[in-house]
Amino acid sequence: MARSTRRIVLAAPARGLPTAETFRLESADLPDTLAPGQVLTRTIYCSADPGTRARLSDGPSYAPPLRAGDTIDGFCVGEVIESANEKFAPGEVVALGGGWAEHVLFPGRGYIQKIPHRRVPLSYWIGVLGVPGMTAWFGLKRVAAIKPGDRVLVTSAAGPVGATAGQIAKASGATRVVGVASGADKAAWLREAGFDDVVDYKAVSDLGAALRAASPDGHDILFDNVGNAMIDAVLPLMRMGGRVVVSGQTADYNTPYDQAPALHNTRYFIASRLRMEGLVVFDDLRAFPAAQEELCGMIEAGAVKVREHKYQGLKVAPGAFIDLFQGSAFGRRIIQVGEEPR
Amino acid sequence: MARSTRRIVLAAPARGLPTAETFRLESADLPDTLAPGQVLTRTIYCSADPGTRARLSDGPSYAPPLRAGDTIDGFCVGEVIESANEKFAPGEVVALGGGWAEHVLFPGRGYIQKIPHRRVPLSYWIGVLGVPGMTAWFGLKRVAAIKPGDRVLVTSAAGPVGATAGQIAKASGATRVVGVASGADKAAWLREAGFDDVVDYKAVSDLGAALRAASPDGHDILFDNVGNAMIDAVLPLMRMGGRVVVSGQTADYNTPYDQAPALHNTRYFIASRLRMEGLVVFDDLRAFPAAQEELCGMIEAGAVKVREHKYQGLKVAPGAFIDLFQGSAFGRRIIQVGEEPR
Repeated sequence: MARSTRRIVLAAPARGLPTAETFRLESADLPDTLAPGQVLTRTIYCSADPGTRARLSDGPSYAPPLRAGDTIDGFCVGEVIESANEKFAPGEVVALGGGWAEHVLFPGRGYIQKIPHRRVPLSYWIGVLGVPGMTAWFGLKRVAAIKPGDRVLVTSAAGPVGATAGQIAKASGATRVVGVASGADKAAWLREAGFDDVVDYKAVSDLGAALRAASPDGHDILFDNVGNAMIDAVLPLMRMGGRVVVSGQTADYNTPYDQAPALHNTRYFIASRLRMEGLVVFDDLRAFPAAQEELCGMIEAGAVKVREHKYQGLKVAPGAFIDLFQGSAFGRRIIQVGEEPR
Repeated sequence: MARSTRRIVLAAPARGLPTAETFRLESADLPDTLAPGQVLTRTIYCSADPGTRARLSDGPSYAPPLRAGDTIDGFCVGEVIESANEKFAPGEVVALGGGWAEHVLFPGRGYIQKIPHRRVPLSYWIGVLGVPGMTAWFGLKRVAAIKPGDRVLVTSAAGPVGATAGQIAKASGATRVVGVASGADKAAWLREAGFDDVVDYKAVSDLGAALRAASPDGHDILFDNVGNAMIDAVLPLMRMGGRVVVSGQTADYNTPYDQAPALHNTRYFIASRLRMEGLVVFDDLRAFPAAQEELCGMIEAGAVKVREHKYQGLKVAPGAFIDLFQGSAFGRRIIQVGEEPR
């Protein structure tokens, strides 16, 4: 009898905000024997990632769109239950590329790493030490080349990328770190995380004026997860030699491509010698272990705090994902699919 | 009796394209004695620079706007006729910041350099070895970090910045160099200068398709002197890790700020890991001599060719300048104001 697993797949490409109808839970067979290089894991945790949004519809993105029937991809913490790969043995716990599924068949190539210790919770390896945290890290360290004294503005600041970015900035000697986020709960969290100020973009009538007031000397770095409307508002406020990290364009993902906001204030690229660069953290995979070790030290020292929201059971993953775009909660969305090993 | 000179000043800030009424020729006194550090030069050559355009109206630019009565600024080749600066002696020939004037009073601080040899024509020191050539050099070398094998697209390619950029790119090992320029004369010049292909933006119905056809594998570097409309057309055609050098926004300078084109295709920053950066070559002043020496070698070797248009007499400077924005001619505009020393 064939082995089977359960997974959540794309039912139909989304137009605009994804809904419950975008997804479908189904059973799928697993192979009886593994091909050389393959590793079979049982999923302990998977995550709901805003970056997945771009792959649910058409249009250019950093990765090709998913097709109907494809498993929703994402990263997982899993326990190896079978291995045809000499580097991995049953019982080992790994972080790997996978998706919303009870089992992941690692094909032999792609992202997989052993979790080297249990100094922090296992779920952190697909959160603050996974793609969101590494995005914050390489966005600031490699793309923006952050240095002590920089003034840093972070948008979508209460999310796992933004909150981690602000805290890494502080730990890297930033003089001032301002977050853009909406609502008292997020503001309280960001102040707890050490942000110097928080601008509630929904509560102000003039975003530019509010951002100017929050950092009167301007911003050296804009770490942006929102998109063109936000970048356009900040370009005039950037300091000489400023860097714009295009980490995500969440607002634009949910807008039909030809109706998305545009950048008008590009004259500041020359006037203020600005640099803007797009970031896909998978380009930095080889540098993950060293960055993870350094960031892990910041977490243990209390310099980087972590907010997680845990959901129980694979079938709630679509709801956890849709929550991301409704602004009701914040923090990393982790779905617990299986038990942690002892 | 006071010494006097003649100069061309801003009569009234321009709205849109500058006209003859934008400028005024007037006499001005020169000091009887120089203050410590000052140097008085008689102008041999001055230039008409497109970058000056931004300073004739309001709005953000890399330099503050000129006010009515200010001398139109630019760079000059001059002969020192009086010096209160131990570094410069009468009879020496220098390139310096100055403007459209028969004499320049160097204030003791700012750009001035002795012209170290006569291996190339004196006028080159405010052309291919001056701001336009240095803009091409540092735009490619520092901002774009050009490397062998890169595919390079240059806009406003027939002008002194663009033509020099394309030739430096070729000399730096670029696999393919494509220029955007209008008209058969410019195309012929660019082919003579070694460009692999020329796209006439006025003669094609679909600029994006023409740019794709001219370099089917895409562009690693866009060296842009036009502005948002051009950059927006090229962003989808950039190769992974591409660099956009924002060298000038000539088209946008002549458009009221709120009507200028915008960037829509910003999704490619993440999708193609693009980097866009503004350039003001004055930031690189200290590195000019080494770059000039290297570029001078390329000129002497015939790897970089030069086109100049010489105008005679200070009073024709406004006409030479207005010509820049009417697309009728190309090449560096040099105004001969005085005789070369023997």
